Amino acid sequence: MDELFAQLRKVVGDNHFLNDAASLHAYESDALTLFRGRGSCIVIPGSREEVVACVKLFHAASVPFVARGAGTGLSGGAVVAPGGAILAMSRMRKVIEVHPEEHWALVEPGVINAKLSELVAPYGLCFAPDPSSQKVCTLGGNVAENAGGPHCFLHGMTAQHVRFCEVVLPDGRIESWGCRSGGDSDLDLRGFLLGSEGTLGVIVAIGVRLMPVAEDAFTVLAAYHSLLEACEATTEIVAAGLQPAAMEVMDQNTIKAVEDSVYRCGLPTEAGAVLLVELEGPRRVIERDGKELVDLLKSRQLMKLDVATSPTQRAALWKGRKGAGGALGRQAPDSYVMDGVVPRSRLVEIMSFVEEVQAASGLKVANLFHAGDGNIHPHFSYDARNPEQSALVEKCGAQILERCLELGGSLSGEHGIGLEKEHLLSKQFSAATLKIMERVRRVFNPDDLLNPGRGLPLSRGCAEAFRRHRGVEPPPA
Amino acid sequence: MDELFAQLRKVVGDNHFLNDAASLHAYESDALTLFRGRGSCIVIPGSREEVVACVKLFHAASVPFVARGAGTGLSGGAVVAPGGAILAMSRMRKVIEVHPEEHWALVEPGVINAKLSELVAPYGLCFAPDPSSQKVCTLGGNVAENAGGPHCFLHGMTAQHVRFCEVVLPDGRIESWGCRSGGDSDLDLRGFLLGSEGTLGVIVAIGVRLMPVAEDAFTVLAAYHSLLEACEATTEIVAAGLQPAAMEVMDQNTIKAVEDSVYRCGLPTEAGAVLLVELEGPRRVIERDGKELVDLLKSRQLMKLDVATSPTQRAALWKGRKGAGGALGRQAPDSYVMDGVVPRSRLVEIMSFVEEVQAASGLKVANLFHAGDGNIHPHFSYDARNPEQSALVEKCGAQILERCLELGGSLSGEHGIGLEKEHLLSKQFSAATLKIMERVRRVFNPDDLLNPGRGLPLSRGCAEAFRRHRGVEPPPA
Repeated sequence: MDELFAQLRKVVGDNHFLNDAASLHAYESDALTLFRGRGSCIVIPGSREEVVACVKLFHAASVPFVARGAGTGLSGGAVVAPGGAILAMSRMRKVIEVHPEEHWALVEPGVINAKLSELVAPYGLCFAPDPSSQKVCTLGGNVAENAGGPHCFLHGMTAQHVRFCEVVLPDGRIESWGCRSGGDSDLDLRGFLLGSEGTLGVIVAIGVRLMPVAEDAFTVLAAYHSLLEACEATTEIVAAGLQPAAMEVMDQNTIKAVEDSVYRCGLPTEAGAVLLVELEGPRRVIERDGKELVDLLKSRQLMKLDVATSPTQRAALWKGRKGAGGALGRQAPDSYVMDGVVPRSRLVEIMSFVEEVQAASGLKVANLFHAGDGNIHPHFSYDARNPEQSALVEKCGAQILERCLELGGSLSGEHGIGLEKEHLLSKQFSAATLKIMERVRRVFNPDDLLNPGRGLPLSRGCAEAFRRHRGVEPPPA
Repeated sequence: MDELFAQLRKVVGDNHFLNDAASLHAYESDALTLFRGRGSCIVIPGSREEVVACVKLFHAASVPFVARGAGTGLSGGAVVAPGGAILAMSRMRKVIEVHPEEHWALVEPGVINAKLSELVAPYGLCFAPDPSSQKVCTLGGNVAENAGGPHCFLHGMTAQHVRFCEVVLPDGRIESWGCRSGGDSDLDLRGFLLGSEGTLGVIVAIGVRLMPVAEDAFTVLAAYHSLLEACEATTEIVAAGLQPAAMEVMDQNTIKAVEDSVYRCGLPTEAGAVLLVELEGPRRVIERDGKELVDLLKSRQLMKLDVATSPTQRAALWKGRKGAGGALGRQAPDSYVMDGVVPRSRLVEIMSFVEEVQAASGLKVANLFHAGDGNIHPHFSYDARNPEQSALVEKCGAQILERCLELGGSLSGEHGIGLEKEHLLSKQFSAATLKIMERVRRVFNPDDLLNPGRGLPLSRGCAEAFRRHRGVEPPPA
């Protein structure tokens, strides 16, 4: 190991190699702290050549490794295998090419999601997928987890916004998958990469699709007596033929957390839920559809309806939603933000189930979610220092995900599988399909050094190799 | 073989088993007649159970087979391996489920593309991808080739409109890949199916996404002195921030063929090219953007500008484009409709190159293409009874595709790789990537019975196993 470390230092420079206890601790988990893994070192390459050199060294030494962006993932996708190396991509943040006339750009994986949209704004373009963490999360991580965001309801997930990727394979070769021109590419290896959680190769460049920024937007916030009424309203909006860019719901627990925080924005704390709907498009459509939306919302019982007529008012309506994660995070030492999908018409059922789980467990659950996509995000507030509570949180999460599957949904809307959901994969996929996935992955990653085991159903015994529940076990020296 | 045939007859019934010479001849090629293969039988199953039974029989007898839709493909993707079996899916045309409120439907693979849109029209929905063959082509074939169409410029290819597929694997198991609810699915096996040309499994059901039908459309036809001016106009339209649903170009050879046929619609035969632009969306946007489009088109030299202000006029403007394939088909005994992609800003260059190829070869080439996507379709008219001409056509086609790659494009926009482009794959993809594709395919199709060899670079020796150039060799008895 010392020999490997010396070689890695030589490649990236002493300043970009870390293996002190504090650094290793800081890189133990992503934003889902239920799952942790202690690596042996963190290497921060500054160029694709350095990535190639590092990967070759890992390969020669048979050291497992994982590429990591900003660590904002919520499924433990970037948690390193015990003793493995972390390839932190944070220095690879160059925008290599911008093709405004062709609506695409070539970027390094460490480019921050929101920065890209800022950079191409002068061309009237943007990168559409907008994860809640977009101010800090990186495009490489977005690709690895096939990230979504509120406006992905209209524009589609990250997968729909990536034309091609340049990838370092475990043996150090660089391959390019997908097409610069956006055409077909025979077997879609590019598509395989999207959501593959670092198990197929290390992405060193991404050809991202850029979209014209909408001319205008129209945002309303409707308050309901109950969460179920808010869910029903989302189904009605789509059934009426309106095509919102975003439809976000927050329940009473979330509203209260927001109003009790610096994100306070006048949400009605007595409401069972609020529904935020945003239309975007040309001004004249927005005017007309906005009126139709307001009429439709008013046609059923409402507690309150706020309509934004200026960018400032729009920002005010979004303030609570954007701050909700942070506001909920204040409520307890630890958070577990789940991610599951149901058909939109089953939202009422899954929300009733989440309520039952909450009542039966005595845990505090808040709901804020992308209602348009049927993509729920129950948010558990708990204290990981209490091992029983941690175990209960995890058990409740699994119950909710299994219920999503029963309702015809899926295990992941936008957070990926990570360490969190591996043991549930066999509930969504047949043994034959999982075997195929495993064998496909082995084609790319024959020695299983790239984020080993991720996205395949681990036996619990194996999952236990990762230290779980912060504080339960002391970090190794 | 006799034993196998008897068993197949038992599964599908005598009426749905064919192995007479006339039938075998009729199923020798798809719509690209340059490539032909003589199978041993045609089996037409009526249900997924029958598909499973047939596949198990093929597997047990080690007989290669290919699933086939309407045979409208243009790359030889559905040409059977010599002596193999054809699984014709034409009887599997049930619409199994429609979920108007969730915007999706479950259909069998033999459902005709345009029929699906007709069927869901009462809900205000449609299936967006619209291949030129949409009145006859099937959704299973659309998935197999990841088909496009004029309006895919706005809405995306077939891959963007398929949520999940149910697939029979070579050993007869049925697996479902993708999600009914449209969520993530770990490794995207669904995405891998799209464009896999029948090499991974036999699709028996497709969960298709449905889209709201646009409220209105606005169509213009602009005539230019030269093809290059028409190409430049497409780039300007996008650069101006307009987002047409379709942008189609036809050159003078195409215009003349149309005006000389039953599709005659008053196109200016003295024009170098016409550009058809269609906007779709809400009425009020269409009005505004339509005016902007007309102003922009008029700001550069034009021969003529026709604007449709009614559905009838719109249909009249499309008549020539929709009939162009048929009109060109009348010009010679055989046609070769190519398919390649360049970045839209390189259309002028690739069209100049096509012109050079035409001049140097003395062949007649007409151009009609999806300009918005940079997706060109040079159309060669030739006589396959002349083997030298056939060879020349093929050589010219390869030259044009190689030039597409040099300009940063790809081998396929929407026709797939098929038999046509296999020998060029190594020009687009590295040996390492092709090896990965081959090994991934082997995971699904270990005995290589499913459309063997398709989409992988065959040595020419191997390609010769398929009889090429109609009329060059007599069909075997």
